[in-house]
Amino acid sequence: MNATALATPSPPSSSYTRSSQAPTSSTAPRSGTRLGGLDGFEMLKRRAAETPGLISFAGGLPAPGEFPRTKLAASFVRALQSPSCPALQYGWPEGDEDLRSWIAGQLRRRGASVARDDIIVTSGAQQAVSLAAQMVRGAGARIGVEAESYPGALELFQALGMTAVDDRSNVDAYYIMPALSNPRGRKLSAHERARVLSTLRPIIEDDAYADLCFDGAAPRPLLAEAPDRVFHVGTFSKTLCPGLRVGWLVPPRALRADVLKLKQAEDLQAASLPQAILEDYLRNEDFDQRLVRLREFYARRAARMEQALRRHLPGWRFEPPAGGFAIWAEPDAQPNEAFFLAAAIEHGVAFDPGSLFRANGAVSPFALRLCFSSVSRDEELDEGVRRLARCWAEVA
Amino acid sequence: MNATALATPSPPSSSYTRSSQAPTSSTAPRSGTRLGGLDGFEMLKRRAAETPGLISFAGGLPAPGEFPRTKLAASFVRALQSPSCPALQYGWPEGDEDLRSWIAGQLRRRGASVARDDIIVTSGAQQAVSLAAQMVRGAGARIGVEAESYPGALELFQALGMTAVDDRSNVDAYYIMPALSNPRGRKLSAHERARVLSTLRPIIEDDAYADLCFDGAAPRPLLAEAPDRVFHVGTFSKTLCPGLRVGWLVPPRALRADVLKLKQAEDLQAASLPQAILEDYLRNEDFDQRLVRLREFYARRAARMEQALRRHLPGWRFEPPAGGFAIWAEPDAQPNEAFFLAAAIEHGVAFDPGSLFRANGAVSPFALRLCFSSVSRDEELDEGVRRLARCWAEVA
Repeated sequence: MNATALATPSPPSSSYTRSSQAPTSSTAPRSGTRLGGLDGFEMLKRRAAETPGLISFAGGLPAPGEFPRTKLAASFVRALQSPSCPALQYGWPEGDEDLRSWIAGQLRRRGASVARDDIIVTSGAQQAVSLAAQMVRGAGARIGVEAESYPGALELFQALGMTAVDDRSNVDAYYIMPALSNPRGRKLSAHERARVLSTLRPIIEDDAYADLCFDGAAPRPLLAEAPDRVFHVGTFSKTLCPGLRVGWLVPPRALRADVLKLKQAEDLQAASLPQAILEDYLRNEDFDQRLVRLREFYARRAARMEQALRRHLPGWRFEPPAGGFAIWAEPDAQPNEAFFLAAAIEHGVAFDPGSLFRANGAVSPFALRLCFSSVSRDEELDEGVRRLARCWAEVA
Repeated sequence: MNATALATPSPPSSSYTRSSQAPTSSTAPRSGTRLGGLDGFEMLKRRAAETPGLISFAGGLPAPGEFPRTKLAASFVRALQSPSCPALQYGWPEGDEDLRSWIAGQLRRRGASVARDDIIVTSGAQQAVSLAAQMVRGAGARIGVEAESYPGALELFQALGMTAVDDRSNVDAYYIMPALSNPRGRKLSAHERARVLSTLRPIIEDDAYADLCFDGAAPRPLLAEAPDRVFHVGTFSKTLCPGLRVGWLVPPRALRADVLKLKQAEDLQAASLPQAILEDYLRNEDFDQRLVRLREFYARRAARMEQALRRHLPGWRFEPPAGGFAIWAEPDAQPNEAFFLAAAIEHGVAFDPGSLFRANGAVSPFALRLCFSSVSRDEELDEGVRRLARCWAEVA
């Protein structure tokens, strides 16, 4: 697909070949030069997805090699066997009952007092954040976010007319990832945790990466401390696969009925088929064991990318992530961000530009999110960083 | 599941048994007595779903026996075979490219000038209507609907602060189902069609049942006449299966980029896996042939229910539907609606109460939507109508 194809309607191709796919996860720019309906970064992202041999450190995608394909296929076949076939039929707006039981059980193990009927299954974590944001929004509500935050949430707050600010002292609500932040891969400090809780404001707790902390099981969620004002968000996208689009929201109980009505108005329900597959899969597999393996897998990749960065780009500062998919790097020079990204793609490597993660979209100080998660082989981590280094030497 | 379980959080059951599932499709009440967080009709709906042996004429569900399970399973297995496994990964917000090509091709055959890149794949038709409504909404926008209309849309307009009115003369936009209306199963007359088009207002064209007109292929859409102000909505939920949650929106081209941003903020993208399955299925199967068979199937069921109504409830007026899943019946007496529904469930039969389909929620004149689509055997149409008749004789 040509990057401009979306802006200029063209006759559909007659060939029925599968095109390359690319992430929507966290790379959508909030601002940028409009080029025929596509933002500049959006065009670069799509161009990158078209470039043969490109090594992508962009997008926050999980490793496709870790998708449990055979087991999911077996679950699919089993899920179709019931005569009334609920897997293919409409379902309840709150989601599959057994799946909600499983999610509630996981949260109870982490210290939260959660029952099955507190859980609302959503169309991915993004919808969960969206529903929560609509609940906490007032006219022009100020929402406190971390200095670098998940772009999909920042985009959303803007679309809802909310103002995201990284000053956390004077806000109406918070959006945070306490277990493990994105993009920094950092755990919220005990001090910050206490401070946020002490404000008594509503908190959207995005727990997307909580199960991928390298040092062990997911920590105690904020939900456990303040269930009356925490909107807890989770997802299977990072630990199983994003293509199912199954996430969940635990809203404060007093708002559950309102959230459910809003969810139903938006899209009736999360897709039945992925829920049915998941429910069967979780019943038959050892998910804890899977999480242990995934933590080892991503920790090994993180270490390898850290090593490559220290060797090839010794001037770049970064903090080794405590988990997740990415390293947040702060180089020692300040090139033009869009220009450097375009140059990097020319060199056969892509990344997520730092401005995407900032509430005000600032391009300075120059920074990059480098995802080690989704390259097809570990060696590509070395080669991708070498390409970045060559490009850096030319441009910066 | 007990009907009150959702209102009163309770410990999740330890047994991992599949519970009965029920529709979200079109039975959510807009108003009604709140019972511990659940509307009265919602409680009745859930109670009905629990009642063993109940014959349900509610919900607008397709016949599960017509789901192409084996073929979908084969498509699933093939969709997982690509090394990068896009079926389980994040995808583009606008949806799968080949799937969009197929949808555009179908619309071109019906006379609309549509290219692949005009299509946005959505999380079911409901999300498509929701996105369109957000685009046409002003402060307190008045939206013209038919005298009886799809409850999911009416709920949505209310949630968005819009006013749905069945007076069509003084409105800011329209929501209509021209090919085949729900619940009446009626085609928009040429006169009405011309009148709506002549107002030059934006139109949300909900085409959910267009492929299920009993007299043949889907008619020319309004999209073909006024692509600059028609938001065209379609879905695979009625013709293939709802559990995939795959629908689409064709917005006016000038608004495409804005719609896409909104869609992305809401839930990033429609689920990759159902799209991948669909894309493979459509490539390998004769969908036109399937539609021919489905039209015959539902037309036969409609005729059988009509016959049963004429025999057992000769005082009830109805217009034989021109397609779709349901008959709109207007009885000859005026019982209390909620009371009659509760009594009918006691008699082992359920239906959708007429007030759900009215913009103002009026319970009078008393009417019912009777779905002939989803009973497991044709004979249940006779038996269900007999039960209705027995209940009617007692109550009305």
